[in-house]
Parts: sequence; structure tokens; C-alpha cells
Amino acid sequence: MQDYTSLAQEHHGLFITFEGGEGCGKSLQSRMLFDWIASFKDAVILTREPGGTNLSENIRNWLLVGNINSWDPITEALLFLAARSDHWFKKILPALKAGSFVICDRFQDSSVVYQGMCKGVPLDILDKIYLKITGGRYPDRTYLLDIPPEVGIKRSISRRNNNETRFENMDIEFHKKVRSSFLKLARHHSGRYLILDGNLSPDEIHKKIKEDLIQQFRNIFS
Amino acid sequence: MQDYTSLAQEHHGLFITFEGGEGCGKSLQSRMLFDWIASFKDAVILTREPGGTNLSENIRNWLLVGNINSWDPITEALLFLAARSDHWFKKILPALKAGSFVICDRFQDSSVVYQGMCKGVPLDILDKIYLKITGGRYPDRTYLLDIPPEVGIKRSISRRNNNETRFENMDIEFHKKVRSSFLKLARHHSGRYLILDGNLSPDEIHKKIKEDLIQQFRNIFS
Repeated sequence: MQDYTSLAQEHHGLFITFEGGEGCGKSLQSRMLFDWIASFKDAVILTREPGGTNLSENIRNWLLVGNINSWDPITEALLFLAARSDHWFKKILPALKAGSFVICDRFQDSSVVYQGMCKGVPLDILDKIYLKITGGRYPDRTYLLDIPPEVGIKRSISRRNNNETRFENMDIEFHKKVRSSFLKLARHHSGRYLILDGNLSPDEIHKKIKEDLIQQFRNIFS
Repeated sequence: MQDYTSLAQEHHGLFITFEGGEGCGKSLQSRMLFDWIASFKDAVILTREPGGTNLSENIRNWLLVGNINSWDPITEALLFLAARSDHWFKKILPALKAGSFVICDRFQDSSVVYQGMCKGVPLDILDKIYLKITGGRYPDRTYLLDIPPEVGIKRSISRRNNNETRFENMDIEFHKKVRSSFLKLARHHSGRYLILDGNLSPDEIHKKIKEDLIQQFRNIFS
């Protein structure tokens, strides 16, 4: 593969997000992509949602460690959006403005799928708030790692080393709905999404992502 | 004044809010009203925003102790709304459903004034979220304690015994805008609002509020 050390670092902010259900491999893939890009470009950050700033990591702790039935879906959605807003203004937007690549493990589409499509928070509210926060800036490319929930949850449980059990505790029907909702969303935004088979090996998936990025952003990767 | 001990406690949920700028006396007045109602009715709660639940009190601490410039107005608004949502579903709505009186020190109108009218978060977003949370249930009565900001801030500083300095730190022009925005909002919702002169003595204001409540809700106070 080509050497991209000459890649102009100042002018090419690029916003890449990973989405998918539990145990789909997106945290690993976002890390692998980060490592690859960091090998030829200094200005790249790896971040996650909820999280990425002080406020957002606090909200993450509440959301992911808490009792799943502790909040109404609209409360939950508002907390995620507050965390996103802080993350956007303090970390993502400044990085993009500075020409950095930003790789983010989950973003708005997770709110649309989990709180919106699966828990009934009206999508127009989620969209309206998102537009107010970002002014309509969407990720340049989103990778959906698609995997049957049975496989994902099994993986997720086997490697668990923390208390973030909140989403995994939900029943299998819910996770099936999450999967089909992500697929629906990805097909609806097919220009921005690439759907990847999460059953492939990490190296195979990583290779496909690299090839896709190079193909999608020829002007940058040249 | 009449004895209201016979007031039917089961069927009359009543939602009363207090609004106004810093140092206007709403915390004192909401407490005085609570004490009066509690003297003849068991089912009455006094609460405040942000606050009132575990999550909301946490958010309160962040919001009121934090640096005023720490968050974008939309982040701030979303945090207040998340706190309100939790407060609504866990405390206010169950109490109203059980026939309780609920007295709340600040509510949605504070978001409309501070984050909306004064800091530019679109009012239609605030309204849309509010409607989703409450299904369109507004306070039955709102008391606006109106006072010149110079007086309110002076009061507020002289009695301060905690770290909640966030809003008081804002400049006088901002507080003037808060005052005029509250007045505008109260006039717009004149059916629900009573504007009171915050320069009167606490006892005089309290008397006016009691008289108003009895007059407004004859069916309840009889």
C-alpha cells in the first residue's frame, strides 16, 4: 500500500464514524484505523461517544453503568445529546477545523437507532437538536459493522472488563431491532455508509475499510 | 383566612411554579407557600430546578458551580432539559397523578428565558422537547417575582452561603435582559402568570400569592 506521508495535513479535516450493535467490533476497528492513519499523519484523533470530554465521560458513566430502566428514553436521549454537544464543540469541531482526521466510535446515528428507532423518541426531535449542534455537518464516512446480535453479545460478554453492561443487558429482541434499524439507516444514507460483515476477521475488515477510505477520498489520499 | 383542612386531597393535583431573576425571592416565597399549604394538606411537595432527583441534583452541581463559559448554550439547555425530564417523570408527574400539590422553584420558563431568549437557543427546539417530556402539561399557575437586577444581585450576594455563583456572575446587561424576557413571557402567557413586585416585603408577597391561589382555584380551595 502507498506511503501517505506526503498527505497534506492542514487542509483535510475528515470525520469518520463507526456504528453497530454490541460486540460488533467497532472499538477495535476504530483503533486499528487510527493506528494506520497515525502512521502517516500526525493530526488524527480517536474518540468515542458518549465520552470524549470531561462532561461527556461523566455522562457516559451514568448512562452505561446505571440501571437500564432508570431513565425515560427522552431523558436518556437528552443526556446523550448534551454529551454529544459538549464533545462536538470542545473536541470534534476544533479538530476538524484544524485539518485533523477525527475517528469516532459511535455518534448521532446511535441515538437515532437506540433512543429513536428502538425506544420511540421522535426522530424529528433528534434531528432538530443535531442540526442545531452541528449546523448540519455529518460524518464524511460511516462504517457499520453488521453482526447477528447472538454473536455480538457473546463476544461482548466474553471480553468484558468493566461495568458497562447497560446495553448488553437488554433482551435479544431489542438487539435484533437495533441491528435492523442500523441496516435501515445505513441504506437510507447509502452515500455516506459502508456496511461491513462483522463476521470477517479483524484484519479483513480493516483492509476493506482502508481500501474504501482511499477510494472515497482520492483527493486526500494521493 | 379560612381553614382548608377539609380540602379534598385525592383529586386535586396542582402544579405551581415560581420564576424570576437572581435574588428575586422565589426560593423564600416557594418555601412560604409550601409551609402554608402543608398546614392544611399533607400531599404537597416543594422542589426545585435544576434538581429534585439524584440525576438532576448532579446536573445542578455541574451547572451552577461550573464556569459560566464552560458550555455552549445548546449543551447547557440539553443538560437542563435532561434534568427536567428526569424530575418530571420521577417526581412531578407521579405527585400530580397522586393528587399532590407540587411547588417548583424554577421550571421550563427559566430555560426559555435564560438559554432561549437570552442566549439564542431556538425556542421551537425548547418547546418541542418540553412537549415531548410533558405531553403539553403546563404549570397551573406561575408566579413571577419581578425585581430590578441591581437589587436582586445585591440580595443574592449578601445572603450567599454556597458556591452557586454561576448565573450571578453574568454582567448586569444580561440580567436586565433576563428581567425583560421574563416580563415578556409572563405577558404572553397572562392566563397562567401573576407578576408580583419583588420589592414588597416577603409577607406582603406571600399574602398576595395566597389570595391569588384561592381566587384562581375556587373549586379546590373551598
